[in-house]
Amino acid sequence: MSGCRRLLLGVSYDGTDFAGFQRQADHRTVQATLEEAILRLCGEPSRVVGAGRTDAGVHARGQIVHVDVQKGPPVERWPKAMNRYLPDDVAIWGSREIPSSVHAQRSATAKTYRYSWHYGSLRCPLSRRTHALLIGALDIEAMKSAVTLLQPGIYDFRMFQSTGSRIRTTKRQIVSAKLREQKSSLMLEITANGFLYHMVPRIAGAIVEIGRGRFTVDDFATLLEGKPVFPPPTAPAHGLCLERVYYDGNIDLVPPDC
Amino acid sequence: MSGCRRLLLGVSYDGTDFAGFQRQADHRTVQATLEEAILRLCGEPSRVVGAGRTDAGVHARGQIVHVDVQKGPPVERWPKAMNRYLPDDVAIWGSREIPSSVHAQRSATAKTYRYSWHYGSLRCPLSRRTHALLIGALDIEAMKSAVTLLQPGIYDFRMFQSTGSRIRTTKRQIVSAKLREQKSSLMLEITANGFLYHMVPRIAGAIVEIGRGRFTVDDFATLLEGKPVFPPPTAPAHGLCLERVYYDGNIDLVPPDC
Repeated sequence: MSGCRRLLLGVSYDGTDFAGFQRQADHRTVQATLEEAILRLCGEPSRVVGAGRTDAGVHARGQIVHVDVQKGPPVERWPKAMNRYLPDDVAIWGSREIPSSVHAQRSATAKTYRYSWHYGSLRCPLSRRTHALLIGALDIEAMKSAVTLLQPGIYDFRMFQSTGSRIRTTKRQIVSAKLREQKSSLMLEITANGFLYHMVPRIAGAIVEIGRGRFTVDDFATLLEGKPVFPPPTAPAHGLCLERVYYDGNIDLVPPDC
Repeated sequence: MSGCRRLLLGVSYDGTDFAGFQRQADHRTVQATLEEAILRLCGEPSRVVGAGRTDAGVHARGQIVHVDVQKGPPVERWPKAMNRYLPDDVAIWGSREIPSSVHAQRSATAKTYRYSWHYGSLRCPLSRRTHALLIGALDIEAMKSAVTLLQPGIYDFRMFQSTGSRIRTTKRQIVSAKLREQKSSLMLEITANGFLYHMVPRIAGAIVEIGRGRFTVDDFATLLEGKPVFPPPTAPAHGLCLERVYYDGNIDLVPPDC
């Protein structure tokens, strides 16, 4: 169709008041919110495809979507133009025109997710929307040792997926994994070529069990061999944030550092 | 009265959904929320006195209040006990029994307020509740130069108060003032022996005008002499946070670093 363009858009959102990324009838979703803004901006219906289908409550600083449009402003004006039609809790931070062979999800080479906790003796109102709560004693050194096991390489994450996912393989390649302390925040940041459903919240859940002394670093090593030792609990959705989606060089969109 | 104790409590809150600290009919306030939790915890009505009467939308990491109670748990159990009765957006982080001569507001020797902005070319959903927005070019060096003028000492802040405040003097002593950059955040932190109504939002507003090139550092110096050059605009409430209230050594309550 003449004038049809495929655009890659960088999106950030506070996931608190969304029922997740993916459109669902009678629920407020990021996808539907973006599609509505595009309808208002371009006057044409569209279908937004996200690189990561974040769950209800999950945030994003670096979500990437693609969309095919025929109308609308020049690509470089999309962030400001879209932001006028988007609610406060979602914004576009970047845009780029791409060949129609590029796909936001399938062309992604890697993604980074961050899981954040507030830890201390009491809860913290100002971080409650983005940090899961860890009250009481924690063996942070043990947690760090466990994360150190996630050296770059391929692992079978079958023990870290939520049942029901239908996928070809449960193996994923870790690019980097680290656990950082910052004041009373604890942050687990994982970059991989792909993620199973609930993989990061379950790694986060296992790391907490180790911090609590309920499981050992060796147990974690065994889980990473795909063997059942204990079922890793799923850490709450609101601690999770999609930080970055990577593509090949000339397509890559880098989120602002905020 | 037998068994009457005066307690000092450390309080943090996300001010977004409060109509400010001070009790008002038909509005959700921090004071009323605390008094209701105390009623539930102790079974007695009380009156909470805050060190700083933060406006609607203003946050606190280090608010301090005092309250006189006859019942309730031992003082060291108050944070956990109160937090069970408090909503998600407010929490107690510390407690201490004090002589009845100590007053949360009048005995405070100094306070620290922080004003935070997100700056960049586009808005940021994840910081929207705690950071005011500064979009577009900013001369940050000029802003820093202006803040440098606030060396420790006494200044007449008459140009930085909101009209209508009835106070004895408009002079206040600055303990420290600094402007920090962190990623795409800009933070103005001011410690003083006291603050006029709207003093920090108006200093913040003036600093932005200087960053925008609409006023000079010299203009700011003139304002600090109490002379009218330009009326400093009031920066939005949601960028402001009460970080710390200081008391004499054996009364001081230090908030957790979060």
